[in-house]
Amino acid sequence: MESAPKQGDEGAPDAWIEFEPDVLDALRGIEPGDELVLLTWFDRADRGALMTHPRGDTSRPEAGVFTTRSPHRPNPIGLHRVEVLSIEGLRMKVNHLEALDGTPIVDVKPVLSADASER
Amino acid sequence: MESAPKQGDEGAPDAWIEFEPDVLDALRGIEPGDELVLLTWFDRADRGALMTHPRGDTSRPEAGVFTTRSPHRPNPIGLHRVEVLSIEGLRMKVNHLEALDGTPIVDVKPVLSADASER
Repeated sequence: MESAPKQGDEGAPDAWIEFEPDVLDALRGIEPGDELVLLTWFDRADRGALMTHPRGDTSRPEAGVFTTRSPHRPNPIGLHRVEVLSIEGLRMKVNHLEALDGTPIVDVKPVLSADASER
Repeated sequence: MESAPKQGDEGAPDAWIEFEPDVLDALRGIEPGDELVLLTWFDRADRGALMTHPRGDTSRPEAGVFTTRSPHRPNPIGLHRVEVLSIEGLRMKVNHLEALDGTPIVDVKPVLSADASER
């Protein structure tokens, strides 16, 4: 993350991501303007959490974590839809990434129309 | 997968998923009609793949696997948008799941409007 992040449209900051050298080829073809799904590993999550108050609102009854996007879940993988702002070699700047500094990125995928909601 | 799968709207079959007993509570609140994102682990993938022909079309130039949804990638996590058809305890039937029989499900999340494409 940048030290003084600009706020994105959805309240999450722009962020710099740095990839490991051994995946450089996997990034080939990614360009500014591309919409991507980033998968992160919430390495500071409580993997024993099975139920939680939706959106952290304790006035709401607990629900299974699989009905929420809470980071605290058995396999704490995060899904983040972002737009590429710039990419240079192993460094990529994206918008709208809500994740703690240092959170590992475990996969990158293009957004597909099949992901789209009809709503 | 069912032995004689019905084809869903997107050409992928309906499928039964069976969860481990220790995550029963995490499923609480999931109901038929819910739209979910399932994350799978492509356990038969080639994790050394960094570039591939998009959609397996060898007439197209190779691109980085992060620009594709190929299962062959460094961390072979699959994203699948499905609708819940039925759920009973640890067994859930969903539509539109394109995955090999026995593929592990590693996470379940609700679809959010933020996942939606504007296109």
